[in-house]
Amino acid sequence: MSTTLTPAEQHIRDLCIEARQAAQLLATLPTEKLDHMLEEIAAELEKEADLIFAANAKDIAAAEEAGLNKALIDRLRITEKTLATMVTGVRQVRALPQPLGQKITEWQRPNGIKISKIRVPIGVIGIIFESRPNVTIDAAVLCLKTGNATVLRGGKEAIHSNRALIHVIQQCPSLPKGAVQLISDTDRNLVPFLCRQSDFIDLIIPRGGHSLIATVVAESRIPVIKHAHGVCSVFVHEKADFAMAESIILNAKIQRPGVCNAIETLLIDRAIADKFVPQIAAALTKAGVEIRGDETVRKFVSGDKIVAATTEDWTTEYLDLILATRVVDGLDGALKHLATYSSHHSDSIITEDNTIAERFLNEVDSATVYWNASTRFTDGGEFGFGAEIGISTDKLHARGPMGLDELTSYKYVIRGEGQIRP
Amino acid sequence: MSTTLTPAEQHIRDLCIEARQAAQLLATLPTEKLDHMLEEIAAELEKEADLIFAANAKDIAAAEEAGLNKALIDRLRITEKTLATMVTGVRQVRALPQPLGQKITEWQRPNGIKISKIRVPIGVIGIIFESRPNVTIDAAVLCLKTGNATVLRGGKEAIHSNRALIHVIQQCPSLPKGAVQLISDTDRNLVPFLCRQSDFIDLIIPRGGHSLIATVVAESRIPVIKHAHGVCSVFVHEKADFAMAESIILNAKIQRPGVCNAIETLLIDRAIADKFVPQIAAALTKAGVEIRGDETVRKFVSGDKIVAATTEDWTTEYLDLILATRVVDGLDGALKHLATYSSHHSDSIITEDNTIAERFLNEVDSATVYWNASTRFTDGGEFGFGAEIGISTDKLHARGPMGLDELTSYKYVIRGEGQIRP
Repeated sequence: MSTTLTPAEQHIRDLCIEARQAAQLLATLPTEKLDHMLEEIAAELEKEADLIFAANAKDIAAAEEAGLNKALIDRLRITEKTLATMVTGVRQVRALPQPLGQKITEWQRPNGIKISKIRVPIGVIGIIFESRPNVTIDAAVLCLKTGNATVLRGGKEAIHSNRALIHVIQQCPSLPKGAVQLISDTDRNLVPFLCRQSDFIDLIIPRGGHSLIATVVAESRIPVIKHAHGVCSVFVHEKADFAMAESIILNAKIQRPGVCNAIETLLIDRAIADKFVPQIAAALTKAGVEIRGDETVRKFVSGDKIVAATTEDWTTEYLDLILATRVVDGLDGALKHLATYSSHHSDSIITEDNTIAERFLNEVDSATVYWNASTRFTDGGEFGFGAEIGISTDKLHARGPMGLDELTSYKYVIRGEGQIRP
Repeated sequence: MSTTLTPAEQHIRDLCIEARQAAQLLATLPTEKLDHMLEEIAAELEKEADLIFAANAKDIAAAEEAGLNKALIDRLRITEKTLATMVTGVRQVRALPQPLGQKITEWQRPNGIKISKIRVPIGVIGIIFESRPNVTIDAAVLCLKTGNATVLRGGKEAIHSNRALIHVIQQCPSLPKGAVQLISDTDRNLVPFLCRQSDFIDLIIPRGGHSLIATVVAESRIPVIKHAHGVCSVFVHEKADFAMAESIILNAKIQRPGVCNAIETLLIDRAIADKFVPQIAAALTKAGVEIRGDETVRKFVSGDKIVAATTEDWTTEYLDLILATRVVDGLDGALKHLATYSSHHSDSIITEDNTIAERFLNEVDSATVYWNASTRFTDGGEFGFGAEIGISTDKLHARGPMGLDELTSYKYVIRGEGQIRP
C-alpha cells in the first residue's frame, strides 16, 4: 500500500503493531504471570485513586458544561465506591478459572496421531465503546486474563478518565508494552481506519448505539462480534400462572429499564386477554409504565389510558418505562410475531404447559429463551461466568453473554511418530 | 431503503428471502426429516445422472473453447466415478451423528434456574466458491444436515453443472422451498450485493483465490469465515530423525502439491544444516521439486542447482513442486520465522526432543501444529469429522477443518419456576 497515512492514522497503526507484538508474547505466558499482571493492576488502581478522580472530574465538568443529562453524568462519574468496585472486579477476574490451555477435546486416529483441541488466546481484540469508564477496565482485564492484547477506543465524554485508567494500567511493571492500548484521539472519522487494521487486530467488538455499530459493520475488514440492541419479550400463554406472569413482567420491564435484557414487548394469548390484560395494565400503570397496545389490548382497558401501538413499536428498543403490548393467537401467534420482529436476544414464555413450553424453547431463535423466568438473567454474572465482556447479538463464535471462554480461540495440536498421508 | 434494485439484484434478494423462510422451518425439523432429505438427494442424483452429464458436457465444451488448461478441465469434469463419489458422500453425511440439539453444557444456578447450552443451526449460509462442481453438493448437503439453508454462488466455468445439480436437489419433494438456492448469474459485480443481505444471510464462507476473498472481506456486512491460503511449513530440529524428516517433507510437499495443507516452506536447524541440507536437497530434486534456498542452503548444495530465495518466497503459496528452504538458528529461529511469515495454517516440527517439541506446539500460533507428522492431515476427513465444508483460516467461530459442529451455533435454554432478578 502506497497510501500516505495522516499522523493520527500512523499513531493508530503504531499502537496496533505494538499490540500485535504484545499478543505474541502474552500467548506464551503461563497463567501465574497473567494473573500477576491483574493483581498489579488492582494495586495500582488503588494507589493512583487521586489521579483517577482528578481526571474524572475533568470529564464531569465538561459534561456539565455541555449540558448532558443527569443520568448520563452519573454513568460517567467515578466515585470512591465505583473505583472500589472496579478493583474488586479485577481481583474477581484474577480468581476465575483459566480457560487457556484447556483441552476442549482430544482423540486418537486409527493411524496413531493424537489430536488435541486446545484453548488459546484470540490475539488482539479491538473494543469500540461508548459507555462508562468502568468498561475500560473490565475489557482490558478480561482480555488480559485470557492472554489477549487490547486496543480500546472509548467515547469522547470519558476520555480523561480513560486516559488516566489506561495510564495506571500501563505503568504496571509486569505488563508487556502494547498489551493494553488506548486510542486517545476520539475523532469518529478514525473508526473506519481502526477497523481496517486486519494485519494486527483479530476481532472487533463494538458496544454502543445503532450508528456506532452500523459504522463498524460497514467499515470493518476484521471479524466483528456485535453487542447491539435487544427487543426482548414475555409471552403469557393461556395456561400461565397469572401471579407469576405479573411478577416476571414487572421485573423484566422495571428492575432496570435501560439495559438490553429488559423487555420491550409483551405478548398475551387471546384466550386469556379479557382477564389478564386488565390485571397487567393496572399493575404496569401503577408502576409508571406507559403501555402501547394493539386494538385488542385497548379494548380491554378503559379508554384513552393506552397509546395505540404501530408496527414500529414491535421493533423498538425503548430502554425506558414503555411496553409495547399485543394480543396474539396462542403459541403460533407468538412464534409468528417473534419470527417477524424479534431481535433474537432474550424471549420468555410463561406457561404451566410443558409441551407448549418446549415448543417455544425449541422454535424461538433467540440467544436466550426462557420458560417461567425473567429475561433479566441474560447476563454473564447471572449465568455464573464471573464476568462478561458484554452480550453478543451475533450467532457466530459467541452468542449471548460473553465470558472468558468466548474470549478464546483454539488450535489443534497433533502429536505423531512420523505419520504421513497415504 | 429507497434504492431501486436492478432485476438481477431483486432476483438475489428474492432468493435470500426464500432461504430465510426455509431456514426458519428447517430449524424446527427433527433429525429424521433432515436425513430423509439427504437420502432423497442421493437417490435423485443417481436417477438424473444423464441430465447432470449433459449439463457438465456444456461446461467442458466451453472450457475447451476458452482454452483452459487440462488440469482445470479435469477438475470441472463430472465422470461416472465423480458422480458416484458425490452420491456416496451424501449418504456418508446422512449417516454422521447429528450435532443439532446436543447439550454442550448444562448447569443450575443457586436461584434454581437451569441453563442448557444447545446446538442449533446457524440459519442461512452463503457460500461463494470457485472450485469444482462437487463443492456444490458437499456444501448444500452439509448445511442441510445441520438445519441450515444455503445460498450458493459458484464460478462461471461450472455454471451449467451447478444449475443441473441444484435443479436435481430442488426437485426432491421433502425439501422446503428455498432451502438450497443457487445464484445462477455469475456476474462478479453481484458478489458485493449478495454480501450485504445481512437481514437474510447469517454467515458467508468464501472459498477461492485472493481476489475473491479480498472482495468478500471488503464488501461483506455479514460475518465471514475465510477459507484462504496456506503457507505451511516443516521445521527440522537438530535432534530430528533424518529419515522421518525426509519422509514427512516429501509427503507434505509432493503427495498433493495443489492443496492448502501442502508445505511451501522448509526450515532447517543450523546445527544440522551441513548434513541434512544435502540429503533433503537430493531427495527433493530427485522427486522433481524446485528448491528456492537462502544463502546457507545454497552453500551446502553444489552450485546453481538451487534458485536463490527472496523475502517474497517466505510468504508465497506455490501450490506447485517448489519449496522455499531456509536455515534458521534452532527453535528460536524457527519461531521467529513463523511469527513473521506464517499464514497460521499448519506447521510441523520434526524432533526427538520433547521439551523443544512442546515449546513449538505451544508457541506457534497456527490452526494446526504438528510434532513428527505431515501437515497433510489438516483435513476434515483425516480428522475423522466425516466431511468438511472447508478449512477455516480465521480464528473466530471455526479454525482449521470445519465439520458439522462448526456449521452450528448455540442458544441458551433457561427453565425456571418464576424466578426474577433481585
